[in-house]
Amino acid sequence: MPSNQQILLDNRPQGEASAGNFRLVTSDTPPLQDGQVLVRHHFLSLDPYMRGRMNDGKSYAQPQALGEVMGGGTAGEVVESRSDRYRLGDKVVGMGGWQQYSVVDATKPGAMRKVDTTQVPLSHYLGAVGMPGVTAWYGLVRICEPKAGDTMVVSAATGAVGSAFAALSKARGCHTVGIAGGPDKCRYATQELGFDECIDYKQHADALSLSRALKIACPKGIDGYFENVGGMVLDAVLPRMNTFGRIAVCGMISGYDGAPIPLANPQLILVSRLKVQGFIVGEHKEDWPAALAELAGLVGSGKLRPRESIAEGLAAAPEAFLGLLKGRNFGKQLVKLA
Amino acid sequence: MPSNQQILLDNRPQGEASAGNFRLVTSDTPPLQDGQVLVRHHFLSLDPYMRGRMNDGKSYAQPQALGEVMGGGTAGEVVESRSDRYRLGDKVVGMGGWQQYSVVDATKPGAMRKVDTTQVPLSHYLGAVGMPGVTAWYGLVRICEPKAGDTMVVSAATGAVGSAFAALSKARGCHTVGIAGGPDKCRYATQELGFDECIDYKQHADALSLSRALKIACPKGIDGYFENVGGMVLDAVLPRMNTFGRIAVCGMISGYDGAPIPLANPQLILVSRLKVQGFIVGEHKEDWPAALAELAGLVGSGKLRPRESIAEGLAAAPEAFLGLLKGRNFGKQLVKLA
Repeated sequence: MPSNQQILLDNRPQGEASAGNFRLVTSDTPPLQDGQVLVRHHFLSLDPYMRGRMNDGKSYAQPQALGEVMGGGTAGEVVESRSDRYRLGDKVVGMGGWQQYSVVDATKPGAMRKVDTTQVPLSHYLGAVGMPGVTAWYGLVRICEPKAGDTMVVSAATGAVGSAFAALSKARGCHTVGIAGGPDKCRYATQELGFDECIDYKQHADALSLSRALKIACPKGIDGYFENVGGMVLDAVLPRMNTFGRIAVCGMISGYDGAPIPLANPQLILVSRLKVQGFIVGEHKEDWPAALAELAGLVGSGKLRPRESIAEGLAAAPEAFLGLLKGRNFGKQLVKLA
Repeated sequence: MPSNQQILLDNRPQGEASAGNFRLVTSDTPPLQDGQVLVRHHFLSLDPYMRGRMNDGKSYAQPQALGEVMGGGTAGEVVESRSDRYRLGDKVVGMGGWQQYSVVDATKPGAMRKVDTTQVPLSHYLGAVGMPGVTAWYGLVRICEPKAGDTMVVSAATGAVGSAFAALSKARGCHTVGIAGGPDKCRYATQELGFDECIDYKQHADALSLSRALKIACPKGIDGYFENVGGMVLDAVLPRMNTFGRIAVCGMISGYDGAPIPLANPQLILVSRLKVQGFIVGEHKEDWPAALAELAGLVGSGKLRPRESIAEGLAAAPEAFLGLLKGRNFGKQLVKLA
């Protein structure tokens, strides 16, 4: 029964989230029942959706319960097993939460899956070859419906989702444009991630200015847009959308603190006959196998080389998470736990 | 060569449209060329989309040219023919514009079609069994995707589109709720058009109040919404949409004068995983035959009994049109020309 550090949601944010919303505790891992395994987490994934779950309002996920371990994706190793499906040493990915160990019921479908780390490093199963990668795949393929020669745009371009989006979009022959914050990220987007262009939104004081920059970067207009941020960026993109354009709404991080982020010109949905569709990738399990296979192939061939920001130790998770919400991370944000 | 009264767009509106934007002139109809027919218009259709065309900005239709006859749908009778496709006395529907007569090139595909007035009165081909009816059909069937037991909502419920929407939605077994302005229209919606409920938006000072009324009228939430007006009504509907709901954006009449109509909570598109899609019915000609056949059947069987507001004489068209934009019409707005 190893001792297990855990981070609980202690109280809900009023406006911005802060370190004081979390509480670190230590407990013993419980003895295993038949069919259960004990997983030691090597990596915890930090993702923007977690901020939404910290609120108590209507959202797409159940609110995170107070006093319970923060939920989250984990990659680790089986260290004890009372299931014949898993052996000691198996590398596994699941939803272990913000803690060092988790007990998993191996009989529950979808609770956990074994992964092969010969071609793909374990941590990538939380990013490019995991939920964020599949998120990019679903939004691009199923909603943005790219055709060769189309122009595809993504915000939060250098994050885990944006990185995968770029590789997937380029593989389909699309002119691919990112929007990111700061010259370093934009340079990385074009030099490392394969974006044709990247626009630094921090250089633009308002939507009109950003929209002008998009017009230059997207001379044939925008056919598909993958939305991670909302607010000013969406206002800037909408007038650049081509007739019959598609917008996949995956996140609106700029509104997570409760600030209103009205859409200035919804008329453009009609004027340009757009399709604007929200989605959550966990609801489309049927597409995961094909998406994961393509993403693993892109990583294996070096066409997708995702960057990771790795915080050390569970105690560093809250600050790393708050930094993610402010865009301070560079690439996929992880916490190394072992 | 009969003399032909015509209404031209004289100048563009600054803000609200006014009678001064139009000019009535009289000219002679030109002599026919081979393949042409002369149509005497019995009815001119007035439709909200015309307001959008009076502006000079980017819209879904080409702007109406200054100094030219206002475009518009017409139903009439062939009074002179140099085409072997049309005979004197044929009843026809086309885009003859705001004038008493039009010369039509009968060889041009889609310029005009003959209609059968034994079961369906001629004027209905401009409403329930015409463009507005097909608009309702396309938005309902192709975008709102109704299933029996779903809840479908439409704004501008007693207009030409809303009336047809109600009959089509009820035919599919849906709980069907309208939003209209004033107690007379709401009574008409439930007593004559088949709506299960109708909400008078004029009884509500803000989106929150209207949203509460929608909650009562739609106890199982809203699965499909057909948007004709935008602004406060859309803000009120969005929080009531069920997960995976569909919104067909057909018009945003509240923004036609150039006033901003921001969407307050676009996050709900993500939270509820909505699909929001704009469309123009003229771009989906493949669906017209099936739609017109169903609509003619509903009119023939008495399940769709559209009301018409009929202004007398071409000179009355501008005031009737301005009244339409303010919701003063009751049912399909027409001008009787002969």
